[in-house]
This record gives sequence, C-alpha cells and structure tokens, in this order.
Amino acid sequence: MQTPHFFISRDSGGSLVEQIFHAVANRIDDKLLRTGARMPSIRQFADEQGVSRFTVVEAYDRLVAKGYLESRRGAGFYVRERASMTMNTPVMPPLPDSAQQLDVVWLVRNMFRQLPPQKMPGSGVLPHDWLDGELVANGLRAISRLNQNLLLHYGTQQGFLPLRQQLQLKLAEQEIAAAPEQIVMTTGVTQALDLVAREFTKPGDTIFVDDPAWFLMFGSFAILGTKVIGIPRLHDGPDVVKLAELAAIHKPKLYIINSVMHNPTSTSLSAAKAFQVLKTAELHDFMIVEDDIYCDMHPGSAVQSATRIAALDQLNRVIYLGGFSKTLAANLRVGFIATSPELAIRLSDRKMLSTLTTTEIGERVVYKILSEGHYRKHVDRIRVKLDGVRDQITKRLENLGMKVEHRTPAGMFLWTDTGLDTNKLTEKALEQGYLLAPGSLFSPQQLPSTRMRINIAAMSDPGVWDFLQKAMK
Amino acid sequence: MQTPHFFISRDSGGSLVEQIFHAVANRIDDKLLRTGARMPSIRQFADEQGVSRFTVVEAYDRLVAKGYLESRRGAGFYVRERASMTMNTPVMPPLPDSAQQLDVVWLVRNMFRQLPPQKMPGSGVLPHDWLDGELVANGLRAISRLNQNLLLHYGTQQGFLPLRQQLQLKLAEQEIAAAPEQIVMTTGVTQALDLVAREFTKPGDTIFVDDPAWFLMFGSFAILGTKVIGIPRLHDGPDVVKLAELAAIHKPKLYIINSVMHNPTSTSLSAAKAFQVLKTAELHDFMIVEDDIYCDMHPGSAVQSATRIAALDQLNRVIYLGGFSKTLAANLRVGFIATSPELAIRLSDRKMLSTLTTTEIGERVVYKILSEGHYRKHVDRIRVKLDGVRDQITKRLENLGMKVEHRTPAGMFLWTDTGLDTNKLTEKALEQGYLLAPGSLFSPQQLPSTRMRINIAAMSDPGVWDFLQKAMK
Repeated sequence: MQTPHFFISRDSGGSLVEQIFHAVANRIDDKLLRTGARMPSIRQFADEQGVSRFTVVEAYDRLVAKGYLESRRGAGFYVRERASMTMNTPVMPPLPDSAQQLDVVWLVRNMFRQLPPQKMPGSGVLPHDWLDGELVANGLRAISRLNQNLLLHYGTQQGFLPLRQQLQLKLAEQEIAAAPEQIVMTTGVTQALDLVAREFTKPGDTIFVDDPAWFLMFGSFAILGTKVIGIPRLHDGPDVVKLAELAAIHKPKLYIINSVMHNPTSTSLSAAKAFQVLKTAELHDFMIVEDDIYCDMHPGSAVQSATRIAALDQLNRVIYLGGFSKTLAANLRVGFIATSPELAIRLSDRKMLSTLTTTEIGERVVYKILSEGHYRKHVDRIRVKLDGVRDQITKRLENLGMKVEHRTPAGMFLWTDTGLDTNKLTEKALEQGYLLAPGSLFSPQQLPSTRMRINIAAMSDPGVWDFLQKAMK
Repeated sequence: MQTPHFFISRDSGGSLVEQIFHAVANRIDDKLLRTGARMPSIRQFADEQGVSRFTVVEAYDRLVAKGYLESRRGAGFYVRERASMTMNTPVMPPLPDSAQQLDVVWLVRNMFRQLPPQKMPGSGVLPHDWLDGELVANGLRAISRLNQNLLLHYGTQQGFLPLRQQLQLKLAEQEIAAAPEQIVMTTGVTQALDLVAREFTKPGDTIFVDDPAWFLMFGSFAILGTKVIGIPRLHDGPDVVKLAELAAIHKPKLYIINSVMHNPTSTSLSAAKAFQVLKTAELHDFMIVEDDIYCDMHPGSAVQSATRIAALDQLNRVIYLGGFSKTLAANLRVGFIATSPELAIRLSDRKMLSTLTTTEIGERVVYKILSEGHYRKHVDRIRVKLDGVRDQITKRLENLGMKVEHRTPAGMFLWTDTGLDTNKLTEKALEQGYLLAPGSLFSPQQLPSTRMRINIAAMSDPGVWDFLQKAMK
C-alpha cells in the first residue's frame, strides 16, 4: 500500500511527531481515510516519508491514544470507527508540577514495549530462555489442582502465611531475623516502595536514592511531590562523605539503596560502608530502605563482599524489600516488605487501603518453588549462566572502545561508558528495533550521560553488536 | 491447661485489652512463660478470666504483632522464640493526622478476619457455595496449560488486551462506548479508586461519597489528606438538592457513586436522578466516579429502574469502574477503569509508578470465563439464588422487629434498621464468633448508627438468627 501524502515538512512548526499526528488526524476527521482502512506499517511509513521509525511509532501511539487508530496485535494499525465515541476534551485538573517533568514515564513506557527479548539489551529482566518457564507453569498447574474455592475470597491482609514463613527462613540465611508477622506481601517491590514512601513522606520532603539507581522510583516519588536526591555510588557502596554532607543539608526521610548487586552497576556494599551508612542514618534520623531484589544473583562473599544493612540493624531503622520478579517471573507480581512488627501492621493497613489484599496465586506459586527446594537450584543455574558470558561480553564491549565501570564479577548488568550521548544512541537503536537503557534513565535528574546499562543475558543478537560497532566507530 | 494468673482487674487503669497484653508480655519477658509454650485458647482464657472473647482476641492480636506470641493456623497461640529478635521501638514519624482517625482500619481488619462464611452476615462477598469455584479453577488450569513462558515477563501497561476487548463489548451492552485503549486494568476497584483520587486531588481537597457508602474508601481517601463528605442516599439515588448545596459550598473534585445496586442499600439511580447528578457535576465542575462493581447483580430495568451516568455522559466527565471480585473471585484481583483515552494513559502511567503492571493470571481467567459465555449464565444463577431467599429473609428480619430500608427487589444486601446501637451489637456478635457490618462502618463520619448491612447469602446459620432474636428482644 502506498502511503498517502501527509504534507510533512521538516521546516514547518511543531515536532515531526506532532506534524504526523495532525496530518493523519485531519485526514481521518475529513473522512479522507475511511474507517477500517489499514495504515502503512511503521517501517513503510518511515521509509516513504523519510523520517525515523521512532518518530512514526510515537505519532501512531498518539493517534491510538486519541482514538483515531487502533492497533491490532500482529496485524498493524487501522482507522477506528469514531461515530460512537465522544472525543470532547475531558475535564481534568492539571497534574502536580513535579509529575510534568516525568520524562521517566515516557522511558518506562518504552521499557515495557513488547519487543523480542534478544532485541532488548537495555531490559531489566532476563530473557525467557534464561528463566524457567516450566518451573513456574508447573507451580501454577499445581495451584489450579488444589481446593477449587481457593481464590473465591480476598485472602489475608499480610499475604499468604506459608510463604511468609518461607521468607523468614530465607531472611535468616542473610542474618536478618523476621517473624512472619513482620513480613507484608506486596505487588512487587514497586508497591513496597510506594507504600513506604507514602508512609514516611509528605510533599516537599526529601528522599535519597543511589546515583545511578532504578529509574521507576524517580517517577513514583515525584508524583508524591517529594524531592529526590542522588548519592554517588562507588565500587563498594555510596560516597559516605557526600551522604553525610547531603543528609545534614536536606534532612531526608528515607534513603533507598540496593546494598547487594546494585542496579545498574552490579556493585555491593562493603561491611565498612554498610556500617557508615547506618551510622549516618542514625545521626540524621532517616530510615533506610534496602531494596534487595537482586539478592539471589549474588555469588557469595568469596567472590564479592556484600553486607546487608538490615543484618547489622535487624529491621529497626532498616526496611528490607525483596521479590521474585527478577529470578522467577515478573508477572506473578510477588514482592514483600520485612520490617518491625508495628510498621508491618501500618504498611499492611496502607496496602489494604490502596489495593486490598495481594493475589494469593503468585504467592502460592513462589511458596511451592521455594519450599520444594527448586528455587536454590534455579538461581544457581542463572548465576552459572551469567558467569559463562560476563567476561566475554565485557571484553567484546571493551574492544569496541567502551569502558566497563567497576568490572564486577557478578550480576546481570554491566554499567558501561560509551563516550557518546546515550540518549541519542538509544533513539538510533529504537529506529532499528533495539531497546537500550541510557544513563539518563538511571540519573535522579535524568541528566544526559555517556553511560548505559547492558543486560549481559540479552547480548546474543548479532544485530545488537553490529549496531554498537557502527555507533562506536 | 490451666490459665496462669494474670492479675487482670476491671478496676485498675488501662483497658482490659491493655491489661491482658501487659500481663502476658511481662510474664514472657520475665521468662515465667517459656518459649514454645501453648497459650490457652481464646475461649478458655475468656471463660477463666471472666472477660469477653473479643477482648482476648484483641489482646492476643497485639501480642502477636509485638512478637510475643505466634499464631499457628488451626493450632492456637504459642510463646515465640525471642532471643534473636530486636524488640526496640522502631523509629517512625507520626502518621498524618487524618490517618489517626481511621477506626475504619480496625473495622477493615475485622472484615478480613478468616471466619467461616456462614458466620459472616456482615461480609461483603458471597459465600463459597454461592460462587462457582470450579469455573474459576478450570480457568486457572487452562491458563497453566498455555505457553509456559506466559508469566515470565511483566505484561503490558494497560493490562491484557483480549480482556479489554471483552470489556468493550460488556460496556457496550450498558450503552457505554469504550475502546480497549480507554480501559486500564487495575488490582480491583480499590486500586482504581486510589489512582483516580491521587490523580484528581491534593491534601485538603474534598471528595463526595454516598452516605452510606463502601467503608474502605473512607480510609483510602483519608490517608491522602482529603476531606470526605457524604451525600444522603435516597431510594432512587442521592438527595440532589443536598448535592447541589454541598457542591456549592465544598467545591468537590470527585463524587464517587454506586449508580446501580448501591452498597449497602441495593438501590439504583433513576434516569432523572442520573441526569441531575450529571448536570450538577457540570455546573460545579467535578468528576463523577461511577463504581459499578455490583452491576451484574442488577435484575434488569423491568424489576428496578437503573441508569448509569456514564451512559448519559460517555466517559467525558464520568470515570467508570468495574471488577469481578463480587461475582467471580476476589482473589483474582481483577478490576478496571474506563475513561477518556487521554486519562487512560495518565492513570495507567500512575498505576505503573505504584505497582507496575497488573498480573495477567487473573485477567486471563476472567477473559476466558467472559469470552466462552460462562459468565452470563453464572451471574444469572447468582441472581436467581438471591431472589430465592430475599423475601423470606426480609420477612424474618421484620418479624424480629427490624426495619428493612427501601425493600429493594434486587441485590445481595439489605440495609436494616435495628433500633439498637449496632456498634455494640457488632461487638457482642464478635464475642460469639459472628461478624456483623454496623452502620457506622458505612458512615463517612463513622457515626454510631442503628442500621446494619445484611448479606442475604450469609443468613443460613441458625446461630445468627438466635443471636439476632435475643438481641432484638
């Protein structure tokens, strides 16, 4: 199909995306494009109009959002039936100011695009073939054969008790004592962070994060109206001098930290740093939120020293978070909070008021896999597989002229310095159908950066290497 | 086992619950009760100390929360191993003031107690044998046999697309036009309300609700720092004169309403009332949030007239919420928002920042049941069953001297007036192991009330009738 002429010009006002949006929308409004007509594919449109595919994707997304087009999975984009739809502008108060700066939202949407895993070296999860779909499906099958009335009612406030008992054992191995009533199941670590932030902050308060750190929470904290400040992350933990200085100035309420297998650098906290962070928290009276989602990727202290602050503090000033989205299956949506008994009640009350109970399905699947001893073998296999590719990928990236920061001997991520603006690099990669994770994504201020996170499990596609090689020339 | 003497006196200071708590805690601290010792059962403790079982339950709950006791499901309460536990008071800033008034939290905790369904005439869900556990279990089994990699990754931002397409059809039957991109899947209606309230209000803003209304949202809105004001609910919808008066004074941002099968009165909106509510919302510029969770309990307009405001407004000023916790299975945690395309994007961005994606498991189960045509037959059966008991229960309650408000010909709830303080009645019932739903629970101000909500599907236990008969004498 020949693309209709849309009179798109690089010289006239408005971004290219806006121009495409209006050109298509006008033709639909004017009935020049009929209902049900198939739009040209993204590639075709891009090639014929001489614009990037990335631009076309953006424009089509907006057209879908505005009800002009519909996307049929696997079949392309079609002009929507619009007669029955109200297209009046909805009445909406403006978002809080802080949320308007949320480029992170746009980035997050891209991270959750449905691209093939091997096309996503920027992804934060392992590709399907690195996980154990059969293990998870077997778990689900077993649940489906239990008492058929299992799911009819809401379940319990803090979550499935046998799983919380299993987690007590798991935490004990990390020298953290937490009784089941100190554990609150959540919809992933994301909900845990949201609940803790809502419990401890009000608009205008400050939250410390690592710099770099996991991007989603920047957006999550911004819509609460809090100020997010990054603490530089070094090879063995945060810059504690900076932490103390900034704490004295900003009086933070919370410090969110990945002590072990930090995302995106794969570094872990030394014992000395863990002690200093805890002392600083005591001195300046803030809570530490230890997000240990990557804990099971850690190879043991013989390979990389790692100290959890919760092991020093025993859930007094530390709120410990964990989950199974990275090692088992993200769609089970199983995360948890371990904290003092009193705070566990308050946070689970808060959870009930936000989403009521968590679903027991995922919790029962995780319980089964943990309690039957499959989990340990499963994460061992993941670690062995990661160890099998890390050095080779590191060398290959270095041969392209990229610097691999910290060169940690563990984890699924490499934190690289390309010497290039990785925002631009990401845009170029998206045009070719690859998703990268630019450094700006991990910067609390979304500052442009030459750095980029590489998921070593997602570097098997030769096209990714071709792209990087050309870019680094 | 003989209960140890705890020196509990009705005359000394502190509530009975506190006295029991401290008496037991002290004996454990002093090692007079050894680790692992089994505590007397609630009944035994109550009988021997001459206090109510309700009091003992409360005291044991606190002892569990503080780590003194552990509850072993089905086996009673045991003294916990405490050597490894830090019992220091955690560092916590105070909760926002509004949250301290949350008696509703205590009430909610009770609503989610694990009592046998026939002991819970106050429950908001149907007992197991009124639902179809097999239908849900079959759905889950089918999902577990699909592609085993189904659950490994996060899923899509707005939720499982085929379900959103099914919901488009379902909404069309209610004369509401919503394309799949206008639908955002949520963790039940609870999350939908939380997201909408966070989108449209800031602390100090006002939200209107029905009076009476579903209690959980009072707590949910209170922790956002918003003011909650109730609009009296009449037999055919809200008191629109009052609504207009209060809207002029309070300038609300949102009005949350059950148009159809209102909880707890089972009344529905007349067409005239729906029109007037919408006009008032336009005049005073607030959004209407139409929570239609009970829609499938409605018997059709021949039996009770019912107009959805969204059918008049077409998702311009109305945000429509729905879900399957009441008719299929609460633990699937499947709810949704239908709204304008623009707001759908904003709310799904907000969802991602709070909990990331919803789990596809529940969404796929609901999709299967809807798309294979089982759902309609299933809800028909529920309605027939409810119709089969409603009149008889109404008469029996009236014979006891209770007044049944509105006497609606549909729904699972009766809204009754006992002439007694139903807070006290609830406390008495709990002592005997029955859960009631007192009127104060449904009052936006938690005002004491003589009213009470009865779940007609949970009135089969003769003990409930005995209790009510004695109480009403």
